Amino acid sequence: MIIVSTVEEVRKQIKEWKMQGQSIGFVPTMGYLHEGHKSLIDCARKENDRVVVSIFVNPMQFGPAEDLADYPRDLEHDTQICESAGTDLIFHPEPEEMYDGDFCSFVDMSVLTEGLCGKTRPVHFRGVCTVVTKLFNIVTPDRAYFGQKDGQQLAVIRRMVRDLNMDICIVGCPIVREEDGLAKSSRNTYLSPEERKAALVLSQAVRLGAELAKTEKDAKKVVLAMKDKIQTEPLARIDYVEAVDALSMQPVKTLEGGCMLAMAVYIGKTRLIDNVLV
Amino acid sequence: MIIVSTVEEVRKQIKEWKMQGQSIGFVPTMGYLHEGHKSLIDCARKENDRVVVSIFVNPMQFGPAEDLADYPRDLEHDTQICESAGTDLIFHPEPEEMYDGDFCSFVDMSVLTEGLCGKTRPVHFRGVCTVVTKLFNIVTPDRAYFGQKDGQQLAVIRRMVRDLNMDICIVGCPIVREEDGLAKSSRNTYLSPEERKAALVLSQAVRLGAELAKTEKDAKKVVLAMKDKIQTEPLARIDYVEAVDALSMQPVKTLEGGCMLAMAVYIGKTRLIDNVLV
Repeated sequence: MIIVSTVEEVRKQIKEWKMQGQSIGFVPTMGYLHEGHKSLIDCARKENDRVVVSIFVNPMQFGPAEDLADYPRDLEHDTQICESAGTDLIFHPEPEEMYDGDFCSFVDMSVLTEGLCGKTRPVHFRGVCTVVTKLFNIVTPDRAYFGQKDGQQLAVIRRMVRDLNMDICIVGCPIVREEDGLAKSSRNTYLSPEERKAALVLSQAVRLGAELAKTEKDAKKVVLAMKDKIQTEPLARIDYVEAVDALSMQPVKTLEGGCMLAMAVYIGKTRLIDNVLV
Repeated sequence: MIIVSTVEEVRKQIKEWKMQGQSIGFVPTMGYLHEGHKSLIDCARKENDRVVVSIFVNPMQFGPAEDLADYPRDLEHDTQICESAGTDLIFHPEPEEMYDGDFCSFVDMSVLTEGLCGKTRPVHFRGVCTVVTKLFNIVTPDRAYFGQKDGQQLAVIRRMVRDLNMDICIVGCPIVREEDGLAKSSRNTYLSPEERKAALVLSQAVRLGAELAKTEKDAKKVVLAMKDKIQTEPLARIDYVEAVDALSMQPVKTLEGGCMLAMAVYIGKTRLIDNVLV
């Protein structure tokens, strides 16, 4: 496994692999890797000759009041996970390598980014689209892997790739959960033991929604039941619980033809997300 | 020469050429080709194994009050020019091929796009950046050719390519002028015979500015002299005349280290631009 920190080094290696006709699978991450990331790397490993993982806590996708400085980092552990999962190359750039002092370009999207997490995090998806575009242009993968855990992000990336004619196959991978149901997230590390217990209410509400949606097609009723469930937990504060179309991320009234039940919930100061496709 | 209208056809042909190790030169245009475009194709022809020209009047870069519907078109003549200049492939898509009904992604830029033409045409550069990104992703050229005539556009494209890590060499080509000095432009066709004469004042002011700048380093004085020159022409109405840094497009006080004297002037209803690097 190679670890590089400059765009030039990545390009050089990728060109060598491409010259040999090898396919490239790419897993972009912000590091602090867990089983969720590992499942993406595993999937990339199966479907490609070479696997590239980027580890970059992207400043541009954090709002001014968000947890950029505190975002957890552990390069050594990340390296072990990547190595053991058969990664060929880790790209771990410094922010200065990615953003020149006079950087002023960006990739953005309307419609899909306006609701759900986009409401609470107005600059978030601009940051995500911009950095993912940059990483795609650097790595030029055949396939790129994203978790369904960030369901809106996955929909946004898919749309961006389609709209901007990026010749990359986007592969969405299922949410990986702790044994008790909590969706794996680097931010789970923020939780106190008491909050960790309280956080279970997210996956419980998601399961409840999925179960109800088997028979109840009225989105409002299902969402209300999920909200009621979450509100039984005193440490939980709802940011949003919504039923949206799985492609457009627009609110739906009826649960039909591919929908997502999605939520963001504060547990103490930690904002967690979870969702299910119905 | 091949003429195709779908993204799929372009990709297929480009992949074939790349498999053979051939380099791709790309000239994106809005058609109604003139000597200016031809000089770009000539340049691309010299430096690449294959030359691709796109002809697409991009709706996204026209404001609601602008000349999208009236923009001149002549595919037959364009085809002749491309053929005679040794083009290998023309990509001539319909708007629906480029923009799905629910298209909602875009590439944009701050700083460089805020002054000059960006002031009068607020959505223009978003449209340019977005369509050029799409075309770059479709054609995947080694080199792309743009005229210095659209000086701000060239600076914007260069910055976009740098900021977003597009692996493409941007080649800027000199302004091509009519014998009497008027910069070649598809929009010159809008001019009445009387306006055509009046339009000479742009290149005259540009020449004056370039001449003055050899000794006078005070940007304000040079710009003022250019404005005075333009105002001797009754049919001319100044949109802007400015001295800017050639890379950042920010106004300068002193003409040093690579500047651009740029102008947009209405001749009757037709908005023309011209510039010179000093």
